[in-house]
Amino acid sequence: MSANWGVHIELSIFGESHGKVVGVNIGHLPAGIKLDWDFINREMSRRTPGKNNLSTSRKETDQVEIISGVIDDITTGAPLCAIIYNTSAHSKDYEELKTKMRPGHSDYPAYVKYQGFNDIRGGGHFSARVTAPLVFAGALCKLILKTKGIEVYSHILSIKDIKDDHFPLFLTSQMIDNLMQKEYPVINDDIYKQMKERIFEARKNQDSVGGKIECMVTGLPAGIGNPFFDSVESHLSSLLFSIPAVKAISFGDLDDITRYSGSFTNDAYYYEENKVLCKTNHNGGIIGGITNGMPLLFTLGIKPTPSISRLQDTVDISSHTNTSLKIIGRHDPCVVLRASVIVEAMTAIGLLDLLNI
Amino acid sequence: MSANWGVHIELSIFGESHGKVVGVNIGHLPAGIKLDWDFINREMSRRTPGKNNLSTSRKETDQVEIISGVIDDITTGAPLCAIIYNTSAHSKDYEELKTKMRPGHSDYPAYVKYQGFNDIRGGGHFSARVTAPLVFAGALCKLILKTKGIEVYSHILSIKDIKDDHFPLFLTSQMIDNLMQKEYPVINDDIYKQMKERIFEARKNQDSVGGKIECMVTGLPAGIGNPFFDSVESHLSSLLFSIPAVKAISFGDLDDITRYSGSFTNDAYYYEENKVLCKTNHNGGIIGGITNGMPLLFTLGIKPTPSISRLQDTVDISSHTNTSLKIIGRHDPCVVLRASVIVEAMTAIGLLDLLNI
Amino acid sequence: MSANWGVHIELSIFGESHGKVVGVNIGHLPAGIKLDWDFINREMSRRTPGKNNLSTSRKETDQVEIISGVIDDITTGAPLCAIIYNTSAHSKDYEELKTKMRPGHSDYPAYVKYQGFNDIRGGGHFSARVTAPLVFAGALCKLILKTKGIEVYSHILSIKDIKDDHFPLFLTSQMIDNLMQKEYPVINDDIYKQMKERIFEARKNQDSVGGKIECMVTGLPAGIGNPFFDSVESHLSSLLFSIPAVKAISFGDLDDITRYSGSFTNDAYYYEENKVLCKTNHNGGIIGGITNGMPLLFTLGIKPTPSISRLQDTVDISSHTNTSLKIIGRHDPCVVLRASVIVEAMTAIGLLDLLNI
Amino acid sequence: MSANWGVHIELSIFGESHGKVVGVNIGHLPAGIKLDWDFINREMSRRTPGKNNLSTSRKETDQVEIISGVIDDITTGAPLCAIIYNTSAHSKDYEELKTKMRPGHSDYPAYVKYQGFNDIRGGGHFSARVTAPLVFAGALCKLILKTKGIEVYSHILSIKDIKDDHFPLFLTSQMIDNLMQKEYPVINDDIYKQMKERIFEARKNQDSVGGKIECMVTGLPAGIGNPFFDSVESHLSSLLFSIPAVKAISFGDLDDITRYSGSFTNDAYYYEENKVLCKTNHNGGIIGGITNGMPLLFTLGIKPTPSISRLQDTVDISSHTNTSLKIIGRHDPCVVLRASVIVEAMTAIGLLDLLNI
Repeated sequence: MSANWGVHIELSIFGESHGKVVGVNIGHLPAGIKLDWDFINREMSRRTPGKNNLSTSRKETDQVEIISGVIDDITTGAPLCAIIYNTSAHSKDYEELKTKMRPGHSDYPAYVKYQGFNDIRGGGHFSARVTAPLVFAGALCKLILKTKGIEVYSHILSIKDIKDDHFPLFLTSQMIDNLMQKEYPVINDDIYKQMKERIFEARKNQDSVGGKIECMVTGLPAGIGNPFFDSVESHLSSLLFSIPAVKAISFGDLDDITRYSGSFTNDAYYYEENKVLCKTNHNGGIIGGITNGMPLLFTLGIKPTPSISRLQDTVDISSHTNTSLKIIGRHDPCVVLRASVIVEAMTAIGLLDLLNI
Repeated sequence: MSANWGVHIELSIFGESHGKVVGVNIGHLPAGIKLDWDFINREMSRRTPGKNNLSTSRKETDQVEIISGVIDDITTGAPLCAIIYNTSAHSKDYEELKTKMRPGHSDYPAYVKYQGFNDIRGGGHFSARVTAPLVFAGALCKLILKTKGIEVYSHILSIKDIKDDHFPLFLTSQMIDNLMQKEYPVINDDIYKQMKERIFEARKNQDSVGGKIECMVTGLPAGIGNPFFDSVESHLSSLLFSIPAVKAISFGDLDDITRYSGSFTNDAYYYEENKVLCKTNHNGGIIGGITNGMPLLFTLGIKPTPSISRLQDTVDISSHTNTSLKIIGRHDPCVVLRASVIVEAMTAIGLLDLLNI
Repeated sequence: MSANWGVHIELSIFGESHGKVVGVNIGHLPAGIKLDWDFINREMSRRTPGKNNLSTSRKETDQVEIISGVIDDITTGAPLCAIIYNTSAHSKDYEELKTKMRPGHSDYPAYVKYQGFNDIRGGGHFSARVTAPLVFAGALCKLILKTKGIEVYSHILSIKDIKDDHFPLFLTSQMIDNLMQKEYPVINDDIYKQMKERIFEARKNQDSVGGKIECMVTGLPAGIGNPFFDSVESHLSSLLFSIPAVKAISFGDLDDITRYSGSFTNDAYYYEENKVLCKTNHNGGIIGGITNGMPLLFTLGIKPTPSISRLQDTVDISSHTNTSLKIIGRHDPCVVLRASVIVEAMTAIGLLDLLNI
Repeated sequence: MSANWGVHIELSIFGESHGKVVGVNIGHLPAGIKLDWDFINREMSRRTPGKNNLSTSRKETDQVEIISGVIDDITTGAPLCAIIYNTSAHSKDYEELKTKMRPGHSDYPAYVKYQGFNDIRGGGHFSARVTAPLVFAGALCKLILKTKGIEVYSHILSIKDIKDDHFPLFLTSQMIDNLMQKEYPVINDDIYKQMKERIFEARKNQDSVGGKIECMVTGLPAGIGNPFFDSVESHLSSLLFSIPAVKAISFGDLDDITRYSGSFTNDAYYYEENKVLCKTNHNGGIIGGITNGMPLLFTLGIKPTPSISRLQDTVDISSHTNTSLKIIGRHDPCVVLRASVIVEAMTAIGLLDLLNI
């Protein structure tokens, strides 16, 4: 399915970058969940660009309006539909983009799929803006998971060639607090400075950069997931690859598990106070598709933002000729910075669905 | 879902490594498909270990028996159920493994999930042996895709630190023929020699190695796939992460797309004889979740086989104590060699489902 | 699933009777469909109560607002989200209903399921009002089916003990035109008069009546549907039993097919100008779960509206005591009158999904 | 989906009437379920025809062979695949039926759907024989439901115009024991005699009869099911309409709920020892799509068996001419007799899936 997803938690998304709204309908939510708006708004703001000079100039307020399923800030159990109005869409001219396909963007595949009827303004339904309601849905799922002792964290593991420290084997509350207070979640402050340099450099060059997000889930019990078609990796990756620009996923704490020997990658078990743990987490808390009680750990690779201001070669699909295209405007040279909350949201949604709470 | 998968092609798998059979039921197959047994058996043999001294000693014949859905080697349109008898399962003693959890294997998570009722002999339902019927299903799907001009190829991109050449931008029939005639699909013969050394080394050390498979699909039209929840990446990754030991997937022809700039990773379009193509394929033929007409290209990371003969630390879940375990026997030190046909099978299944033929 | 439905056409519904909106998100709609608002509004008005003195006094305007997926009245292929604002909800006091469970309404089962958090005002999400966006979705599906020569018609087969003539074996365009021009779709005008009497009688007695809808689909090719789990009967009934108050479905043109002999119910085939037809349609155009080329025909039984003004015995779930309840207000004594368009809508949605257009 | 069904319990069926086997793969079964073969075999024999002179002469042994998912008669949690060999298929000539379409059978729709590739021998995959493995799956589900205090019962409500007494409001264990000991589950012994007469009459006339099954589920808690697309009625009807020859379903204890007034059909609540019950069960234990704590109650209408020995008009699809057909052989004039166990099986499967145990 495409607009709809999930079994125990049901999602249905809609909206376009420059249409009236973006939104999500969420079915099968438990009744009686209190909406913690402080938390929700903090999550929404983490996704919002423009809070500093590192990102695009578009200011989105992303005020969530709930139009069903909630009374007095408490879920009723009925489908919860939430919309976010698009307030700041530029009224700029998209005429040229109707026939000149932007490289790296969905323009051409969407043109073929929808025979040219697709909304091209700002990428239409393919825009990363559609992740805004998913961050809201993720915030709700996080609130529910938290009641079960399950928490989802992430940090920016890399921007281009600049790489942050990995998460440690187990997170401490001090590290989490520390991470939460930062402008962007990067563990090593020196690294963060270098990352900023890379981004400024890209902006200066009318270019863009990509990067990686490392995500950890704590508190997951062992025994979650299923063999084969519903492995935890399968379940989560189907959601995580929905995020625009995600091109790679790897599970475990190694940059490349294939370069090691089995004697190294087999995480040895031991008892600690009657609880089975592993001495290492190279398998990312999942063995045979099922959680083993260690923190769930994976890394997402996000390609460089396709929106760049350089002159690029492309085709004109009306005249069937080769041409070039220069997109004026100020682009966000690095969406990775604000991708962490999206990755966490999708992870929380996927786990809630899998946990069948 | 777990045993079942798919919408336009329906799979349902069953069986255990040391049980009576492994098998698959396939629904929604088109009627009138002629089973090409030469092709099917060749595919089955590609998965079979033991054809040379590189792999485990277990000789599986993997004779497919079709028990429904076919008359005179032609599909009837009814569900096609295929089983493969387990003929050579060792009758060795699994008593020790009932309480000592093998590191890297599904033993412990499965023990928790199934409260100890799971079949542990040879990994039970978690065994890679369950991929045998999936290779059969994949062979059928390949036959159907071929009638639409779509073909699936793969090669061993790496074994540990030894790395083959990447596929070229477009495959030539000569390269394919060349690859098909090799013992194992490795493009560069010198590299293959080095790979074998790594494997022998691992065996000698009672250890194992992992590696990568690069897979390319040719002939896919542009416009296949959907935005968000049913992106081509989502659809395929949910199947590919079902394969035991797969821990990473990345789309595109770059080892790590996040290390480049957008001006490099944006694949520029051009017209060649009225057909839109890209000058590069860094996005692996998928933009915005939808095919762009270029070959579909991705790389799978397979962890080192967990089966090793070394002494390993682990726990005894009956006595709740720390212990160690040494598994006697001759293990396959590198399942990557025969994983290519499994990867191709899953890809063919996933694409047939997505194409809704 | 609950809020979501469908594979080739994806629905997701939301909203409450006295909340802000009711709405539907529709995924996988073909791009390029022109919205015929004359047709859509006519369908919406068929569902609207209050157009005469036969029904409830609540005046719903049911103005559909499309908030995504459409540009210039043409579908873009992206999810189409449509909402209808609730303008005329009575601000009456629902305090008593929080603890006194109305017999025949969802109050008590919903109270148990949602632990009392459910919206009880006007039945909340269980209200027939939620069918308004489904009628809109059905209108879209009808427009698409029409391009394939498929049309969905229905009439009120009975109100209580008063029974209309059955549809003939094949519909004529004259009969359809005739039916369309009537206040409510009843074939026999004398019967309609008697039906109205039954309804007035019920209103006078502070009571309600139920009835039946007979629905026919013309233009369906033979060979649609699947054996067993996706028979046409299974596919449609799962949707039709979603309509509030529907308690029975039977396929075919007989009031009770079980009372006849096989020699009578076996519809004999014959050729008419190279087309295979049946001399009778006792199986309703479906044999073995698959269409046989005859019109699809079924009858839905709708129970009497549970909303009545009489004093009724019930329980108070806060005090755990037996009590009685009298609901003041003017109720619609017969929802069957306006159910025909809902039945047609669900049928159109179900068939579009099944047809995989 | 067609071969596959279910979310919390996964089914996948295969097989043909005259093929090698019929079978089912069952995923997501809880681990640790002890197979009670006495119970399972009793259920299997209830479906088997030929135990007396009322039915067809074909003797099926229906010995279930489990080929995966079970060790020492205890489920492992892995998919349980069960097959039943077809031992007694007549080797009669089906040549004539390849072109002459039997009225009332799936022959013609299947011919169109599968372009003539379908297995026509004994109806192939469309045969009621495919319900044998479903009865086995149902027996397993009943065993699991029983551990939760939920039981499924049914009786033959009618054969043609002869009608049994309805189930009482609540079943007593005496009535159940009584019913269980009978040749066929009919409450009223005099009625059973008359039913047998109808069946003998039909056989004498080379004709067949249909009838109704009334099914009751006891022990279901209130609050099960969902509004709209996953109402209990929707969930169960999608499965029940999978059973060959089922053409009608109605919920509740009335023959036709539409003929009554709301004041009668609104089931009044009352407290009995702190438990909420209803004074009547006209809604069959389901209100708003959700269980209300009363026994679940519904009636299935099964059309007369299409297999009759009379000369029937039909078409020859190879010569495109009208013709007639007389099928020699001894047919079962009334499949309703042995349908009760199938109806119970499908109900048990549907409820286990819905209950998400």
